[in-house]
Amino acid sequence: MVETVETYDGWYTLHDFRVIDWEKWQQFSNERKKQALKELHVLLEKWQQAVEHKQGSHGIYQVAGNKADFMFMVLRPEMKDLIDWKTELNKLDIAHVLTPADSFVSIVEKSSYTKPEQDSYTNPEMLKKLYPAIPKKQYICFYPMSKKRGETENWFTLYKNERGRMMFDHIKTAKPYTENVKRIITGAMGLDDYEWGVSLFSDDPLQFKKLIYDTRFDEVSAKYGVFGSFYIGSYLEEINIDAYFS
Amino acid sequence: MVETVETYDGWYTLHDFRVIDWEKWQQFSNERKKQALKELHVLLEKWQQAVEHKQGSHGIYQVAGNKADFMFMVLRPEMKDLIDWKTELNKLDIAHVLTPADSFVSIVEKSSYTKPEQDSYTNPEMLKKLYPAIPKKQYICFYPMSKKRGETENWFTLYKNERGRMMFDHIKTAKPYTENVKRIITGAMGLDDYEWGVSLFSDDPLQFKKLIYDTRFDEVSAKYGVFGSFYIGSYLEEINIDAYFS
Amino acid sequence: MVETVETYDGWYTLHDFRVIDWEKWQQFSNERKKQALKELHVLLEKWQQAVEHKQGSHGIYQVAGNKADFMFMVLRPEMKDLIDWKTELNKLDIAHVLTPADSFVSIVEKSSYTKPEQDSYTNPEMLKKLYPAIPKKQYICFYPMSKKRGETENWFTLYKNERGRMMFDHIKTAKPYTENVKRIITGAMGLDDYEWGVSLFSDDPLQFKKLIYDTRFDEVSAKYGVFGSFYIGSYLEEINIDAYFS
Amino acid sequence: MVETVETYDGWYTLHDFRVIDWEKWQQFSNERKKQALKELHVLLEKWQQAVEHKQGSHGIYQVAGNKADFMFMVLRPEMKDLIDWKTELNKLDIAHVLTPADSFVSIVEKSSYTKPEQDSYTNPEMLKKLYPAIPKKQYICFYPMSKKRGETENWFTLYKNERGRMMFDHIKTAKPYTENVKRIITGAMGLDDYEWGVSLFSDDPLQFKKLIYDTRFDEVSAKYGVFGSFYIGSYLEEINIDAYFS
Amino acid sequence: MVETVETYDGWYTLHDFRVIDWEKWQQFSNERKKQALKELHVLLEKWQQAVEHKQGSHGIYQVAGNKADFMFMVLRPEMKDLIDWKTELNKLDIAHVLTPADSFVSIVEKSSYTKPEQDSYTNPEMLKKLYPAIPKKQYICFYPMSKKRGETENWFTLYKNERGRMMFDHIKTAKPYTENVKRIITGAMGLDDYEWGVSLFSDDPLQFKKLIYDTRFDEVSAKYGVFGSFYIGSYLEEINIDAYFS
Repeated sequence: MVETVETYDGWYTLHDFRVIDWEKWQQFSNERKKQALKELHVLLEKWQQAVEHKQGSHGIYQVAGNKADFMFMVLRPEMKDLIDWKTELNKLDIAHVLTPADSFVSIVEKSSYTKPEQDSYTNPEMLKKLYPAIPKKQYICFYPMSKKRGETENWFTLYKNERGRMMFDHIKTAKPYTENVKRIITGAMGLDDYEWGVSLFSDDPLQFKKLIYDTRFDEVSAKYGVFGSFYIGSYLEEINIDAYFS
Repeated sequence: MVETVETYDGWYTLHDFRVIDWEKWQQFSNERKKQALKELHVLLEKWQQAVEHKQGSHGIYQVAGNKADFMFMVLRPEMKDLIDWKTELNKLDIAHVLTPADSFVSIVEKSSYTKPEQDSYTNPEMLKKLYPAIPKKQYICFYPMSKKRGETENWFTLYKNERGRMMFDHIKTAKPYTENVKRIITGAMGLDDYEWGVSLFSDDPLQFKKLIYDTRFDEVSAKYGVFGSFYIGSYLEEINIDAYFS
Repeated sequence: MVETVETYDGWYTLHDFRVIDWEKWQQFSNERKKQALKELHVLLEKWQQAVEHKQGSHGIYQVAGNKADFMFMVLRPEMKDLIDWKTELNKLDIAHVLTPADSFVSIVEKSSYTKPEQDSYTNPEMLKKLYPAIPKKQYICFYPMSKKRGETENWFTLYKNERGRMMFDHIKTAKPYTENVKRIITGAMGLDDYEWGVSLFSDDPLQFKKLIYDTRFDEVSAKYGVFGSFYIGSYLEEINIDAYFS
Repeated sequence: MVETVETYDGWYTLHDFRVIDWEKWQQFSNERKKQALKELHVLLEKWQQAVEHKQGSHGIYQVAGNKADFMFMVLRPEMKDLIDWKTELNKLDIAHVLTPADSFVSIVEKSSYTKPEQDSYTNPEMLKKLYPAIPKKQYICFYPMSKKRGETENWFTLYKNERGRMMFDHIKTAKPYTENVKRIITGAMGLDDYEWGVSLFSDDPLQFKKLIYDTRFDEVSAKYGVFGSFYIGSYLEEINIDAYFS
Repeated sequence: MVETVETYDGWYTLHDFRVIDWEKWQQFSNERKKQALKELHVLLEKWQQAVEHKQGSHGIYQVAGNKADFMFMVLRPEMKDLIDWKTELNKLDIAHVLTPADSFVSIVEKSSYTKPEQDSYTNPEMLKKLYPAIPKKQYICFYPMSKKRGETENWFTLYKNERGRMMFDHIKTAKPYTENVKRIITGAMGLDDYEWGVSLFSDDPLQFKKLIYDTRFDEVSAKYGVFGSFYIGSYLEEINIDAYFS
């Protein structure tokens, strides 16, 4: 009999990718640019208030390569907050140069293959994981993933203790990276096309490669990992946004 | 000998996804915006009359993420009604900012692995399922799905009682969610690319995730479920449409 | 030794799908609209003459959902006729609002697993099948399909009598629909990406679903059917075209 | 020990597919149209000189269906010539209405499963195959293909004599079509996404279908053929280009 | 117990593909064109300084076929440098005609199945490989690739010595090409969608085909190679850029 696994769920999360239409931006008059940036800063101020009221967290990143130029990662208490977040952003004048490229809708998730006494919504460690502040690191690595449901290799027909064993091996491989690579795992079953989102944070992007490389040989990744697109971003501080758009 | 399964079919159904072109909308003059919204409300009034004459049901949703911004779910007695529905909408001035993004054409379906005496077009319970009013819940979760026809695992070469057994197990897993998650199942064989559409309704979107998570370990989902894109929407009341577009 | 199967081939066939750019259409002046429709009717008159001279058949359909708005199905004696048909249409002023969305190039085909004496280019029954008039039914269902060439299940490595047996079973399942669902089968090997096109015609679109549903459990469909996109259209009479574009 | 197969390589080849923007073309003034066609004819004259100096061959085709409207097939001595060919074409004014749709970069290839004495760069028969003139037939059929590298069926792990046996069977099946269907086989490993390109030429497009149909049951095609998109084109003589664009 | 493999990592690498919008370029005034090229040369000068300060390398290529027209290959010490490189380029006026088409983000990688004493960050041979100058050859061939993680054939569940054996066989097959084909291997796990990027450089593009052809029969390629798109480019010297855009 195959058992499911208990999950603990925290903030709803949106990864929102945009391509910048520099040509259109450069056709804005200086006055319109100034006004558009001002509007954006007012919205950023509002996002900052959410942080201060422990109602979420957010990060803005410049993305490498041509899949996207900009990425927002946003955490909020309610799904409706994420929808309103998008609508508010898209109504800004600057949004006309931020063409949507991709997105991922999920919720911070801690799945519980561990000892039950450690997991509870009253455990302060758990709460920090479920309602996290986005780590202030220079780089982010984001990718969505699912577990394979093949005709021979099928994660969802394995016994729970078998799945647990592989997850523990996986955690062991990732252990040496704990210090240098912070992570936020989000669950997306029923919310988006892949089943999970992985957001990694580090000051050294080579650590992302090394972590993914080492874990790729874990049974759970080698046999059952189905990976979507990988995105690398560099943190863009609010104070540098005007320079970026200059 | 592999037997098919009897189905009962109700209203034709369209899930219609749109991306909003906010830039174009903001370039409308105030007068044109007012006129465009007025036109939309006249059409909404017509849709409402279909509801009142028991000729269908509909819901409008704001969609999370960048796959779409807007989703219409529309039920009607005839396929032709769905085509006319689309044409009427697309001829509105406001439709110029509602760029089509995706769609799903299907028909409300009750498939009959259950005791035959319970299923009949004269059973009032059945009729309520086949000609449903869209539940007034805050959130919708929609996804299309097929059953796998792989080289080893193939739903359509299984005996009917085997399929029935798995469907009953699946219903059992979903049982605890009956209260909090309403559902409308639609069939799309011969009508669209996936074989079924699943529309879930709840005031708490976390219930979608938990339901999908738990059932993912059911044999029928684990081995035979082939899932399309998942969309999450938040119900938009007619009274809030003008504010949304302001 | 695997044998091929003899085929009889009739008219070349084009399924041509378009999305209507209503915004552009509405920006046409009334005079230009009138002129554009007049041009279209002149072309339709020419198509009608092909029908009268037994040089082809055609149908125009409004398509459900957002994959397309318009579908032309056109049969002609020569491949070159189909290319000229497209060029003539695309040079019309109204073609500027008929954005190509998809297409399928094939030829009416009767494959011969049946008794050889029945099949011949001199058999009048055969000729009616190879050079058909598009049935005047309210609805069309079109989908392209191929036969699977998997690593285990491979249609093209089966013996001919084995394939014949499955085809006969398939025909038997479809038998009860003969009256209500007319069909034109076209072959596309070497002509387009899928191997066959299936065009079904009925006054009741639910019959499409029931037919596809029942036959999905046939060995030939369950194991070997590879299906492309399904399109549902509603027949648009020439007399209603002006109203449609009004 | 799996051995590779020797290949003989001739002219570099480009299949270049375009969609025609008729609306933009019709917005050209008569003077600009005339000038644009004149520019095109000057370039065509240059291409013709390549033919006369045995420095290549080319054909222009009108394509059936909506995948493309126009196809150029171009053979040249150097890869750089193909790049320059594209750049020169794209700088023409008429190129603004020839939107790129697809392409295939390859090189004429004769692979040698045959007796070694027959194959050599000094054999005049071989040279005619490697540096061919595009056959002047009414129709072309082009498709790219690869050989399957599946987990069970894998062309590239078969012994050479096994591959040779299947290739010979394949050639035997195609034999009856030698007269009516001319072919140019090109290799694209390392040059484009599929491994080979097949260009067939005939005055009767039904022969393409019959050839592909018959060979589909060959072991090499049935088990190992992986096919890309099929394109059918009708030869457009230079003398008819102005009429086509009128 | 499956072991990972040690890698040595050098410069971060971007392959950036663009389609040229010739129509828009030709609509630039002569003055604007001159200014736009001047801006580009100033940026090229800056890139050249990076070369001179051993802070990277770069190459510009004209691409064959319609997948792209232009390709930049850029190596830099930091991931942030690649992001800034893109932003600087995209802010140029000429960038408005360089529409992004594809990209690949990776890092120069030497994986170590070889004798450990040969591999070290202090070995000058190793350093030349990790911080290479792009070879000045006429042609480049670029493709991304992954290793298969199938249900039967799975590179990442093989023992390290088994993988090592196959890699050595592969290197042996490629040996005869050492002189004529230079290569830069980059790793992209955690950085982009494929796991590795292969950049080959030669004055004769036929060597790319022959190398890929021969190695395709190696066990490691035949069974485990999963290949993305292949791009062929011809080196464009800075001195020829103005002529190219004339």
